[in-house]
Amino acid sequence: MKQVVTFGEVMMRLSPPLNYRLPQTATLEVTYGGGDANVAAALAQMGVPAAHIGVFPANELGHAAANHLRRYGVDMSRCLFTEGHRLGLYFLEVGASLRPSRIVYDRADSAFAHLDPAAFNWDELLKDAGWLHWTGITPAISAAAAQATADAIAAARRLGITVSADVNYRRNLWQYGQKAQDVMPDLVAGCDIVVCTEGDADDLFGIKAAEGTDNGFISMSQQLTERFPQIKRVIATRRQTQSASHERICGLLWNQGEFFETPFYDISPVVDRIGGGDSFISGFIYGDAHYESREQALSFATIASALKHTIHGDINLVTPAEVEHLMQGNLTGRLLR
Amino acid sequence: MKQVVTFGEVMMRLSPPLNYRLPQTATLEVTYGGGDANVAAALAQMGVPAAHIGVFPANELGHAAANHLRRYGVDMSRCLFTEGHRLGLYFLEVGASLRPSRIVYDRADSAFAHLDPAAFNWDELLKDAGWLHWTGITPAISAAAAQATADAIAAARRLGITVSADVNYRRNLWQYGQKAQDVMPDLVAGCDIVVCTEGDADDLFGIKAAEGTDNGFISMSQQLTERFPQIKRVIATRRQTQSASHERICGLLWNQGEFFETPFYDISPVVDRIGGGDSFISGFIYGDAHYESREQALSFATIASALKHTIHGDINLVTPAEVEHLMQGNLTGRLLR
Amino acid sequence: MKQVVTFGEVMMRLSPPLNYRLPQTATLEVTYGGGDANVAAALAQMGVPAAHIGVFPANELGHAAANHLRRYGVDMSRCLFTEGHRLGLYFLEVGASLRPSRIVYDRADSAFAHLDPAAFNWDELLKDAGWLHWTGITPAISAAAAQATADAIAAARRLGITVSADVNYRRNLWQYGQKAQDVMPDLVAGCDIVVCTEGDADDLFGIKAAEGTDNGFISMSQQLTERFPQIKRVIATRRQTQSASHERICGLLWNQGEFFETPFYDISPVVDRIGGGDSFISGFIYGDAHYESREQALSFATIASALKHTIHGDINLVTPAEVEHLMQGNLTGRLLR
Amino acid sequence: MKQVVTFGEVMMRLSPPLNYRLPQTATLEVTYGGGDANVAAALAQMGVPAAHIGVFPANELGHAAANHLRRYGVDMSRCLFTEGHRLGLYFLEVGASLRPSRIVYDRADSAFAHLDPAAFNWDELLKDAGWLHWTGITPAISAAAAQATADAIAAARRLGITVSADVNYRRNLWQYGQKAQDVMPDLVAGCDIVVCTEGDADDLFGIKAAEGTDNGFISMSQQLTERFPQIKRVIATRRQTQSASHERICGLLWNQGEFFETPFYDISPVVDRIGGGDSFISGFIYGDAHYESREQALSFATIASALKHTIHGDINLVTPAEVEHLMQGNLTGRLLR
Amino acid sequence: MKQVVTFGEVMMRLSPPLNYRLPQTATLEVTYGGGDANVAAALAQMGVPAAHIGVFPANELGHAAANHLRRYGVDMSRCLFTEGHRLGLYFLEVGASLRPSRIVYDRADSAFAHLDPAAFNWDELLKDAGWLHWTGITPAISAAAAQATADAIAAARRLGITVSADVNYRRNLWQYGQKAQDVMPDLVAGCDIVVCTEGDADDLFGIKAAEGTDNGFISMSQQLTERFPQIKRVIATRRQTQSASHERICGLLWNQGEFFETPFYDISPVVDRIGGGDSFISGFIYGDAHYESREQALSFATIASALKHTIHGDINLVTPAEVEHLMQGNLTGRLLR
Amino acid sequence: MKQVVTFGEVMMRLSPPLNYRLPQTATLEVTYGGGDANVAAALAQMGVPAAHIGVFPANELGHAAANHLRRYGVDMSRCLFTEGHRLGLYFLEVGASLRPSRIVYDRADSAFAHLDPAAFNWDELLKDAGWLHWTGITPAISAAAAQATADAIAAARRLGITVSADVNYRRNLWQYGQKAQDVMPDLVAGCDIVVCTEGDADDLFGIKAAEGTDNGFISMSQQLTERFPQIKRVIATRRQTQSASHERICGLLWNQGEFFETPFYDISPVVDRIGGGDSFISGFIYGDAHYESREQALSFATIASALKHTIHGDINLVTPAEVEHLMQGNLTGRLLR
Repeated sequence: MKQVVTFGEVMMRLSPPLNYRLPQTATLEVTYGGGDANVAAALAQMGVPAAHIGVFPANELGHAAANHLRRYGVDMSRCLFTEGHRLGLYFLEVGASLRPSRIVYDRADSAFAHLDPAAFNWDELLKDAGWLHWTGITPAISAAAAQATADAIAAARRLGITVSADVNYRRNLWQYGQKAQDVMPDLVAGCDIVVCTEGDADDLFGIKAAEGTDNGFISMSQQLTERFPQIKRVIATRRQTQSASHERICGLLWNQGEFFETPFYDISPVVDRIGGGDSFISGFIYGDAHYESREQALSFATIASALKHTIHGDINLVTPAEVEHLMQGNLTGRLLR
Repeated sequence: MKQVVTFGEVMMRLSPPLNYRLPQTATLEVTYGGGDANVAAALAQMGVPAAHIGVFPANELGHAAANHLRRYGVDMSRCLFTEGHRLGLYFLEVGASLRPSRIVYDRADSAFAHLDPAAFNWDELLKDAGWLHWTGITPAISAAAAQATADAIAAARRLGITVSADVNYRRNLWQYGQKAQDVMPDLVAGCDIVVCTEGDADDLFGIKAAEGTDNGFISMSQQLTERFPQIKRVIATRRQTQSASHERICGLLWNQGEFFETPFYDISPVVDRIGGGDSFISGFIYGDAHYESREQALSFATIASALKHTIHGDINLVTPAEVEHLMQGNLTGRLLR
Repeated sequence: MKQVVTFGEVMMRLSPPLNYRLPQTATLEVTYGGGDANVAAALAQMGVPAAHIGVFPANELGHAAANHLRRYGVDMSRCLFTEGHRLGLYFLEVGASLRPSRIVYDRADSAFAHLDPAAFNWDELLKDAGWLHWTGITPAISAAAAQATADAIAAARRLGITVSADVNYRRNLWQYGQKAQDVMPDLVAGCDIVVCTEGDADDLFGIKAAEGTDNGFISMSQQLTERFPQIKRVIATRRQTQSASHERICGLLWNQGEFFETPFYDISPVVDRIGGGDSFISGFIYGDAHYESREQALSFATIASALKHTIHGDINLVTPAEVEHLMQGNLTGRLLR
Repeated sequence: MKQVVTFGEVMMRLSPPLNYRLPQTATLEVTYGGGDANVAAALAQMGVPAAHIGVFPANELGHAAANHLRRYGVDMSRCLFTEGHRLGLYFLEVGASLRPSRIVYDRADSAFAHLDPAAFNWDELLKDAGWLHWTGITPAISAAAAQATADAIAAARRLGITVSADVNYRRNLWQYGQKAQDVMPDLVAGCDIVVCTEGDADDLFGIKAAEGTDNGFISMSQQLTERFPQIKRVIATRRQTQSASHERICGLLWNQGEFFETPFYDISPVVDRIGGGDSFISGFIYGDAHYESREQALSFATIASALKHTIHGDINLVTPAEVEHLMQGNLTGRLLR
Repeated sequence: MKQVVTFGEVMMRLSPPLNYRLPQTATLEVTYGGGDANVAAALAQMGVPAAHIGVFPANELGHAAANHLRRYGVDMSRCLFTEGHRLGLYFLEVGASLRPSRIVYDRADSAFAHLDPAAFNWDELLKDAGWLHWTGITPAISAAAAQATADAIAAARRLGITVSADVNYRRNLWQYGQKAQDVMPDLVAGCDIVVCTEGDADDLFGIKAAEGTDNGFISMSQQLTERFPQIKRVIATRRQTQSASHERICGLLWNQGEFFETPFYDISPVVDRIGGGDSFISGFIYGDAHYESREQALSFATIASALKHTIHGDINLVTPAEVEHLMQGNLTGRLLR
Repeated sequence: MKQVVTFGEVMMRLSPPLNYRLPQTATLEVTYGGGDANVAAALAQMGVPAAHIGVFPANELGHAAANHLRRYGVDMSRCLFTEGHRLGLYFLEVGASLRPSRIVYDRADSAFAHLDPAAFNWDELLKDAGWLHWTGITPAISAAAAQATADAIAAARRLGITVSADVNYRRNLWQYGQKAQDVMPDLVAGCDIVVCTEGDADDLFGIKAAEGTDNGFISMSQQLTERFPQIKRVIATRRQTQSASHERICGLLWNQGEFFETPFYDISPVVDRIGGGDSFISGFIYGDAHYESREQALSFATIASALKHTIHGDINLVTPAEVEHLMQGNLTGRLLR
């Protein structure tokens, strides 16, 4: 498989151990991640060549963040390290049972937000790539980031590279003066595969899905692919959140008129829910390239995402063999010697 | 809201990390708490002015205990630090599944047990208070502690301050020569609000409740308020303990003839069950002052108590906004960004 | 009760904290155990005199391993410390939910595997013993280990000592050139009590059980005791593994024609499943000696094993009183003060 | 002694454990501090009533920071909690031997930097105070912070309160458009006691000290007190840094014409050098109030500062009795039972 | 070598990690030790058969304490576990540089203090022993403990067993109504070897040593052996404490008229000074049995004690080979591969 | 600078925290390193392109080891992952003061030892390299490893690549049947730069140095370069080990007839001495490429090595700027803000 390239911000994540709350903890666990980079890292772990393109402050923290992804095999050689801005951070309190996990963001004024779109020669950056992946978080960060995303997509189209996006609409993030509703359509128009829920489609594109669970996704997918004819596949996970410690997920795929869905998978307890969506799309990218059947790709993606919920940190540290072991029906977690 | 004052012993709590047992651990996690002080701390965290009156040994351990409560906003300026006795301790092994948590007490001969009742000028100590709260643990510790409790209640009555008590009968604690059955009635007679279960009422006051779950609580409450006409409200939680890791609780209120109960709330996993009762009464004190409806106060108290089970340590580190988020039906623990 | 003696390998166990995976952890938790030694340790904890006979490298690691068992009261004075070989290790990743726990063995060329059977004077070593216990892991390690096992059993028979075995067939272990199917029958022939499932009996002895859950165990037990008339009792646990975090177990006993089984016990969450089987047989050895009724012995064994799943490490750190508390129906894990 | 009030920013401090570097650590130790607040906390620990006035973001981090100081007895009731800005942070790598400790600041755009000077009614805030202390860090943060500092000093002068300052010139901090050299003189003019080295005096006020070690300090102090006649005492520590792990300090005092200096105290190893200067001035404030002799106050201050170097965190957790034990010549660290 | 038996109290030791202070720590490190038991444990580690006789509460803490010593090879089979009292504790803050380490004792009312002297059949308990060791701490705890010590010594004399004592006078401990000066002489009269400094001899026996460093020890030893003719050897360490982190020690021996002393050994940094004296006497017991030369025994003892200062916990975990490596002049701590 | 390529084994390193000993620890800190790979990692951290060629088991441990080096920027893409063998390990106890650090090796039968020399196409592997570095540890591991080393050197000579070696003679390692004295000369003959002490030269090549400190090194270097004319520079560090906690090192260089030496640098305390030599040669490779003056390269190398002693783990995590800061005379470890 050719290299998968992701583009986006990487943040330091700081969380109290176990279920401690911020005002009571004397230590914080540190890891690093970002919606796009997590995809590159999961793929690299699975043996797929993957590179991330990001912008980091040229200080110990920026290098630590880059090291973290490099550790899991991501090619970080095309990242920029710039002076004058900071590494974005977020603080995560891990909830339990009926107490939700909470994130306190401290990501303003990051080196990534202040990137210079002209610093990226996308035709050069993507010259060995076969796939470009981005998320809706990136254009939400700053006008510069939105511009660079647009440039990357345009280059990918020129080079005939597959483009995927997780539209991932986060209302609170869009604070630099443009609306998601104005920016996202042009970006999504350049994509072949999108992760999108009915809610996202309504919020971003005004698409009203039919009623009913499956119908809703199918109806939304039909409208979305009609509006954006470049899109060939729409995928999503459906979540039945029981509590902060118990999640149920299934995967949905609309593939040029066909609809597939997986059974629900129970995850109890949830070890770490951050990056669950990123594991889904990275699993789908892997599955798309390695399986003949789209249904198997969806199954791989969904189980990969379910497994991510049992792994600490943002990155899905599972091997294809581990996912396939579950695909073969081994869902009871029996000890492997 | 005027200051809530609590009176009682604070102990050091020592517990192995995770589910380790005492004979195998090389580290102990340290925190501090007590049934009364936990109420003050939870209220202080919720923005209610709260003071605790306690007696500590005048050494590093006594100061560490006082610091712990001060950290969460409790006014500790009226506490006494005395020479010659020790800080009570308890060791807690946290169980899991069908293995119960266990407490090994080492609290004999504490500075609090040896308090001098004459050292407390209650009229002065309570002069800015609007509420006095105590638990049945305090008069169980020593004759001196029982005397000081009686003095505090008498002063509160003189000053027109609301008095609440968690009767919390612990048979093993009463070892100084007097019986709970002789001491408690006079103390409870001075209270406006009590936390009391059917079992407590039977053990302490010989009150036999009618049969049936709800009937039992109502019947007990009627008899209790007839016997002690100062009491206006009786509250309690009902527990359906599934395992050391899975608790179900609901809240009950008998308010001058009216009976309310909440649905059961599932807590799975339980992070830390210590202080669950203290969170209930502190939640009720908060709710009583902030809501028109007694039913809402009960709901606030019960959810606050449920949330406590997900928080490490004795003290309920939740904000009113967090409790209210659940009161609005958000019970699935969905991640808050 | 006279001393119980166990014989087998002890390994160092290295596991990342919590549910971390090996490639992401910066610390490993260290403990020590082995299928036979765990039995000795659990019995010693329960007040039964117990000795383990093992072979360790004469270095810091060998001594650390021996110290670990000595700590829990096992008489290690008959162990050998030899030069030139290593302590076997295994790495354990603790799974969660649908992600299985995994073991990476690194036990080749251990001091135990290279033991000299002539170094053991079994008549002397067992002279104060009343019971010998071994597992099917020991003869799987090396021809020398198999020889020593045979010698031990022969001596036990000469001395009139009860012999128990956990046949515990692990296909991957048998790598020194002999087949389990050739080695095990002669060893099992010398046993009074065996832990054996239908699967083990089929794999090792070609015994085909009748269909049906209970029938299968009864049918297998009948055939097994016919083939090996020294065997008086066959026991096993049946597992309904729900996930890596949720186990259900019941106990089965075939005692000279009588069949008993316990209810299923739910363990959720599972804290540490390693050593669950060793706790079952150690519980049965304890129960066999302390209860008149075999059914009670089985109940003790099964609950002891269930409790082990809630305890960190290989060794079942529970007291008989704790097991009996659950035998009396206290299965909801209610806090003990 | 009347209350000591401090004013300034409190930051979260994040440091890898031991001597780990940022790019290799998976955990960070969290504490909180600030040059001014550290003075309040050390005094509160010593039994002196102390309040801090600061501005914190109204989120979990701001409350955690305030809790930290409250824990050590600081009255935080006059602090402001504002929306829209962040808690400043800094990352500290602890060096060893010839490798220096390093700080990476991430403090831009803090709630404190964006304070509104009009939000402080200094006459009210200082009405019970006997002493106001500030550091040169505060006016360096923003024009608003400089204005509030000036307002506080003016109010203190009106109210007849003693004012002390640690001029603490940090070139890199002054980035909001005004120069320290323009801002500081007016602020220092309102002080009674200043911590100032020859280097600070040269950089800030263009004062050129005479040559020679003691002469230099005396000459600088003379010029400084001539220029700012309100100043009655000038104090400083002299450091002979041997390595990141070995510090030597002595204390210097110029008191209205008299000069005192202490012996050098060796600190080896240095546990935590942050806050060493803050402990010196807090020790001097304590000593000034509790000793007749200025020389003893200086000795108390210097030993308090030396002891701080052996204590983790920003805050000097020593009691007056501990300092006095060393003042009596017990400098060899002999175990106290 | 025949078994060495020790008698005395074992306490739980609780200390904050690193150099943290009690009021700031959230975890405590747990270990167990006692002046006598530490001697047994160090000897067991060195391959000498050793048993400890103690009294523990019959609860999890008592068993944990006994387990700790058992782990290091001490025969604990003669210990008593009694109901109704507690395990003594002490809290240790580890100092650094000029800040002393501090101990806060919480040992009153321990199971050991409440021992029943009649419960010990010393002739039976010592029947396999070749050596009895006790410290001056034991008779300081209670009249019962003093009586049991006297009984043990008397039995040892009857059985012809060597008796050693570390007189270790701690003024604060003697609080049960008898004076050390009245109790100790009779006990010391039964000893063959004592650890005693000039200060101890003066305080306990009114022996005034000559002036001068070496002369003082010789003069004291002469008077002591004249007064107590059973004593054949007097040993002691001399300490030149530079700081809490830097100790210098040498060993002194007066052997029936001969005087020996070792060079001073520098220990910098000191990792853990607790148990330094216990390592000295355990080293001497080992050396006395294994070397022809008393001078070598002294050298072994002193280096063993120096090494203890580099080891965490109360117990000296060194092998004879490690001590001898230093005795051969390898004092620079060069890495051993 | 062109890529530096290293070749050799990487092991997992397991060490108790702080100064704990193996038999007492419940956790081990994990890192990975090897004498050659450490050089690649230090260079990568300094911005020099670096690749390591190694052989790892194709399991979680092998991947974890490779990840560790990848994290610090080493190109691991040419490493082999093979079935059937293990990852070598070593256990490190960190000493203090006069107690030496100790290593317990458990490295037999590693995947690296069982490498197939034919699996390496060195002309291809080195085609982009400018420098090849190896250590004397590699040919000591197995005949196959020695053969691969010889092949690598031969290819480097063919390709005109600079070759450096750290001869690093470890007697205990050579156990596969050939002598270092027979194998090493041919390998060293192909080197341009060697790290070699007088002791190594004597042991390996029978070279007898002249007497005297500097003379010895010069005399050895002259003889060495006469014997192996390809060698142009000989370097070494001289160590004055004061204790396990205090090291002094200086650097020595013999460069085609010229002799240079640096001052001694004091390292106190030593944080982690492992990899000190690897930092020296990696510093020299960096310095050789970046400075005109050989003396500066030597100074850079020596200070880099000194700094390594203050850094946890095998790898020298310092930047060139940090080394140069010390080269400019900033040796007192003053805090950098």
